[in-house]
Amino acid sequence: MTRRLLHLVSMYTLIYWPGIPGRGEFVRLLLEEAGAPYEDVGRGPDGERLVASYLGGGGKGTPALAPPILRHGKVTLAQTAAICDYLGQRHNLAPRDEAGRSQVLQLALTIADAVAEAHDTHHPLSSAAYYEDQREAAHDKASHFTGQRLPWFLDYFEAVLQDSGGPYLTGQRLSYADLSLFQLLSGLEYAFPRAYAKAIAATSRLEPLRRQVASRPFIAAYLASPRRLAFNENGIFRRYPELDLA
Amino acid sequence: MTRRLLHLVSMYTLIYWPGIPGRGEFVRLLLEEAGAPYEDVGRGPDGERLVASYLGGGGKGTPALAPPILRHGKVTLAQTAAICDYLGQRHNLAPRDEAGRSQVLQLALTIADAVAEAHDTHHPLSSAAYYEDQREAAHDKASHFTGQRLPWFLDYFEAVLQDSGGPYLTGQRLSYADLSLFQLLSGLEYAFPRAYAKAIAATSRLEPLRRQVASRPFIAAYLASPRRLAFNENGIFRRYPELDLA
Repeated sequence: MTRRLLHLVSMYTLIYWPGIPGRGEFVRLLLEEAGAPYEDVGRGPDGERLVASYLGGGGKGTPALAPPILRHGKVTLAQTAAICDYLGQRHNLAPRDEAGRSQVLQLALTIADAVAEAHDTHHPLSSAAYYEDQREAAHDKASHFTGQRLPWFLDYFEAVLQDSGGPYLTGQRLSYADLSLFQLLSGLEYAFPRAYAKAIAATSRLEPLRRQVASRPFIAAYLASPRRLAFNENGIFRRYPELDLA
Repeated sequence: MTRRLLHLVSMYTLIYWPGIPGRGEFVRLLLEEAGAPYEDVGRGPDGERLVASYLGGGGKGTPALAPPILRHGKVTLAQTAAICDYLGQRHNLAPRDEAGRSQVLQLALTIADAVAEAHDTHHPLSSAAYYEDQREAAHDKASHFTGQRLPWFLDYFEAVLQDSGGPYLTGQRLSYADLSLFQLLSGLEYAFPRAYAKAIAATSRLEPLRRQVASRPFIAAYLASPRRLAFNENGIFRRYPELDLA
């Protein structure tokens, strides 16, 4: 009933590049778990050009520097974590009290830091140049990431789950940070299968959380649908065996 | 009067490394503009050890992975933008409506992206290694940053100011995003004086905003006080002339 009521007031437009899950996927998972209707502009006809048309100004609210962008009525909003914080309040996927809300945002921002570092393993010098033109630096960056940072991030989220008592990051109730952690873990396993296997073996709470998220009815249906995009070598999480330095 | 009332309920503890402005400075500027009392733990006796003691778990709320950390009553909160969002609501330095609040967060997160990229110019390969051991990669990263990214970010904030009508990023009213932009611009000018001068010359609204922030009474008093830490070569914004590739 609550979901049905929300449907009446919520029609969302997601603006994100086609062909990759990317940062758009953190927003998609939230919308899917909420059962919220949304149009995925980038995946429609002429998607890439349409997405580009939303960048910069245009008098529709604060200009956006990069996708993902969410439109909702008169609101136009960019930055993954800001979009998730906004939607989290609307769809009961974050606590309503200020302290609880902020702590979910804290978790989402720490996940975003890990996502950015995973991206930078294949683009350490320039996001405008090809991976093939920065392979040597990528090797060094990936060595640091897989050897130190990846286990550091996983150990941190393990400590959060230990502290909360689980099964979710903030305890008994799912928040959008759990959906985002699901995506981070899935991406890390795709990109760095050997390093991930090694780091995850030192944890006991992360894979159960990942399975718990994957088995939620709306998420399970989404993952089995054609709406779910596979990881690939144009996105954030790329499987380059030479960077999987376990 | 409002300020006095807030004093009664707000005693903050800021936990951040001593000796550098770093990401702690984005929180300090907000607390100073708000006239809020705070203890700056890292700058007291035994600061470095005390800051380190806050990392990881400890049953005081969601564990923190890295400073800055804010303590406020029973709340312990990490991640710069999450702290600023929390304090922004308490001290009237962000709109109260959801759309307005989210758009200030969007701006703060875009500033945080620019801060992270500025940091990575001197540490492109590993945050655990010395700059001197990654100088060649740093040169390439800085070339991309000063040539493309720095002007791209400045042009974006110029467009936001054009869209809002100024003098602040969201229009007539100051938000914590303006304080953060002040710090970003100041850091970029310190680290890359030649590249900054070149990029800022293509804008007309950013330096006026920076002066406007600097001249606010509480900010001006803060900047003239010993509480304000100078930029230096241990922080995020480092002046290495060989990286100032205008």
